[in-house]
Amino acid sequence: MKIEAVDLYYLSMPEVLDIGDGSQDLLLVRVQAGPYVGWGECEASPLVSIASYVTPMSHSACKPVRDSVLGQSLDDVSDIARIGNMVRANSLDLLQADHTLSGIDIALWDLMGKRLDAPVWQLLGYERAFPKRPYASQLFGDTPQETLRQAEATRRAGYIAAKFGWGPFGIGELATDVAHVEAAREGLGPEATLLIDAGTVWVDDVGRAAARLEVLRRCQVMWLEEPFVSGAFDAYRALGVKAGEVRMAAGEGSHTADQAKHLIDYAGVGYIQIDAGRIGGISPATTVARYADRRGVTYVNHTFTSHLALSASLQPFAGLAGHGICEYPVAPKSLALDVTTNHLERDAEGMIHVPDAPGLGMRLDLDAARRYLVETEIRVGGRVVYRTPELAP
Amino acid sequence: MKIEAVDLYYLSMPEVLDIGDGSQDLLLVRVQAGPYVGWGECEASPLVSIASYVTPMSHSACKPVRDSVLGQSLDDVSDIARIGNMVRANSLDLLQADHTLSGIDIALWDLMGKRLDAPVWQLLGYERAFPKRPYASQLFGDTPQETLRQAEATRRAGYIAAKFGWGPFGIGELATDVAHVEAAREGLGPEATLLIDAGTVWVDDVGRAAARLEVLRRCQVMWLEEPFVSGAFDAYRALGVKAGEVRMAAGEGSHTADQAKHLIDYAGVGYIQIDAGRIGGISPATTVARYADRRGVTYVNHTFTSHLALSASLQPFAGLAGHGICEYPVAPKSLALDVTTNHLERDAEGMIHVPDAPGLGMRLDLDAARRYLVETEIRVGGRVVYRTPELAP
Repeated sequence: MKIEAVDLYYLSMPEVLDIGDGSQDLLLVRVQAGPYVGWGECEASPLVSIASYVTPMSHSACKPVRDSVLGQSLDDVSDIARIGNMVRANSLDLLQADHTLSGIDIALWDLMGKRLDAPVWQLLGYERAFPKRPYASQLFGDTPQETLRQAEATRRAGYIAAKFGWGPFGIGELATDVAHVEAAREGLGPEATLLIDAGTVWVDDVGRAAARLEVLRRCQVMWLEEPFVSGAFDAYRALGVKAGEVRMAAGEGSHTADQAKHLIDYAGVGYIQIDAGRIGGISPATTVARYADRRGVTYVNHTFTSHLALSASLQPFAGLAGHGICEYPVAPKSLALDVTTNHLERDAEGMIHVPDAPGLGMRLDLDAARRYLVETEIRVGGRVVYRTPELAP
Repeated sequence: MKIEAVDLYYLSMPEVLDIGDGSQDLLLVRVQAGPYVGWGECEASPLVSIASYVTPMSHSACKPVRDSVLGQSLDDVSDIARIGNMVRANSLDLLQADHTLSGIDIALWDLMGKRLDAPVWQLLGYERAFPKRPYASQLFGDTPQETLRQAEATRRAGYIAAKFGWGPFGIGELATDVAHVEAAREGLGPEATLLIDAGTVWVDDVGRAAARLEVLRRCQVMWLEEPFVSGAFDAYRALGVKAGEVRMAAGEGSHTADQAKHLIDYAGVGYIQIDAGRIGGISPATTVARYADRRGVTYVNHTFTSHLALSASLQPFAGLAGHGICEYPVAPKSLALDVTTNHLERDAEGMIHVPDAPGLGMRLDLDAARRYLVETEIRVGGRVVYRTPELAP
């Protein structure tokens, strides 16, 4: 069969706030081949990913993503890798292409799972899917007192692992950061797994990051995430040596499997965090998961949006028993919850199960999604190259 | 003074051909602050770079590029670095942002040069600008006979260095590739510098690349450019060891200074090729040039478009005497030549001089540029977020 239609839908909260909350918009991707439909999602900047799907060609290695997808044959899961390779070659000089490909690759896996009546993790070659321990991923409070209250609420909600990040952390006084980390530990209790996300705030300044190591060690923080920008390998290595038991975590910025491998090989991270909605989809994410496993590095999903994105980001390491923790957004905006009718809820032991249902196992709620639809139109040279299509099943 | 206006103009040839010729379109950038105007250029996919300038915010680290540029104060050249850092932080999750920033950073340098009545290379701290030996950059012919004729024509035109790339090279029979390289050497004569560009055709396949080393060595090819994709560090190192005197060249795909440094540190390239229109502008390109100089790697511009882009890409290494060769597009489409009234022509010795005039030293031909203007409009949620502005001086 052939890929007959790829439709992109820009969904957004009515108001997008200037906070580090990535659940405020998303680009929903619908792929149709024969009688089958698959759904995927691109993370961040829906308009720019739409533009990279429809943009006129600049030259032979800078084509719109569409040119490598529409009309392609899709008979076997190996076609998904072939299509991804075509996009990377034909859109080599189109920077945004990897983000656009991400949602398409995810939708292709969902579609093939439905066609073959198998969950995606099985199509990836895994014999079983291991439950993951979710960590409650959230922003720091505006004050240490607020962080304390959030951590207490997280504990009451039954989470035994939590991550705090962004917000005021890292940009003000050292004492404030210390108070936030102490508040998080106090609120979670002494046994819980505590993770801290600095959101690249120190860029490549090892000294400023190192000043926080004392409190991180004292509060038994398991990982310090993104102290630096993705490319600051020397800074990561230098801080990692000083950090002792506190391991470095990074990877969400990777838009190719190679970039994630470099973080493992040259930056010395202990945790590699991959967003299937950015790295080019489930295919390159799985390449990274297997590489991390061989290199003794723990793979973790990066997910801050919908449960469609969550299912997609869990598939690449679903079958890897030793990689047991997963990011779980606990306070997303309504958009992220409303787009699916089912959700990946914790079981009685507090664990998350990757769906056993075909494909990604998620059911879209199109009536709900329509309420968030942002009508978009792009005209180039007097011709409409994109107009929001009807949101149909 | 403050940045009062940033205008983006999508220019294109009437017909864009499916060939590896990057001169077929460009995104022209006009920045105005106080009474001064600066011009810059982004390489490839004008529509997508426009979208990343105007896209609605997704969250606090995924803002449109505009939010970090418009209204910013611009009193000193250090403001250019500050603005670049803001873009990278505020648009962290917007992949295309680096390409959009490129043209803006270039325009800011041009503007400050005009304001301070100094060429950009002087503002970068160089005491003088050294002339560069241009290599005639062109595509392989469709047949070895055509490559031979092109090489002969290049020699007759007085070039003593030339690069052939893309087209049929690397995708067919080994014997065809051998014939192309031999034809290039024969046409140029035994003394000329010959460079070969594989355009990432072997992805990460060392074996296929290595099969070409014999003819490259025999024909005294100085560098083999992009045998692999930018991230294939292991493949670069492995081929570099086998290649002997033929050095590896890469870097045009870098969209941050860190990525270019990694190619030097971990891929072992001998030549680092930077396009100021992609890496984020003249600022990060200069960081790479100085780093390469310290590491004993030769910096070379990557330029396949206009002479505005050529001037911009020459500035970062204008003052580095030991980095003496520059890419020079010899057969660009009319668009790339028509947008400026002056051009960087070879002197009597065949050398290219970076302009001594203020800024980038290039004069725009707006009447000509208007003929290539592609009217573009983007509407989001019923609101026009971009419409091609008037192309004014």
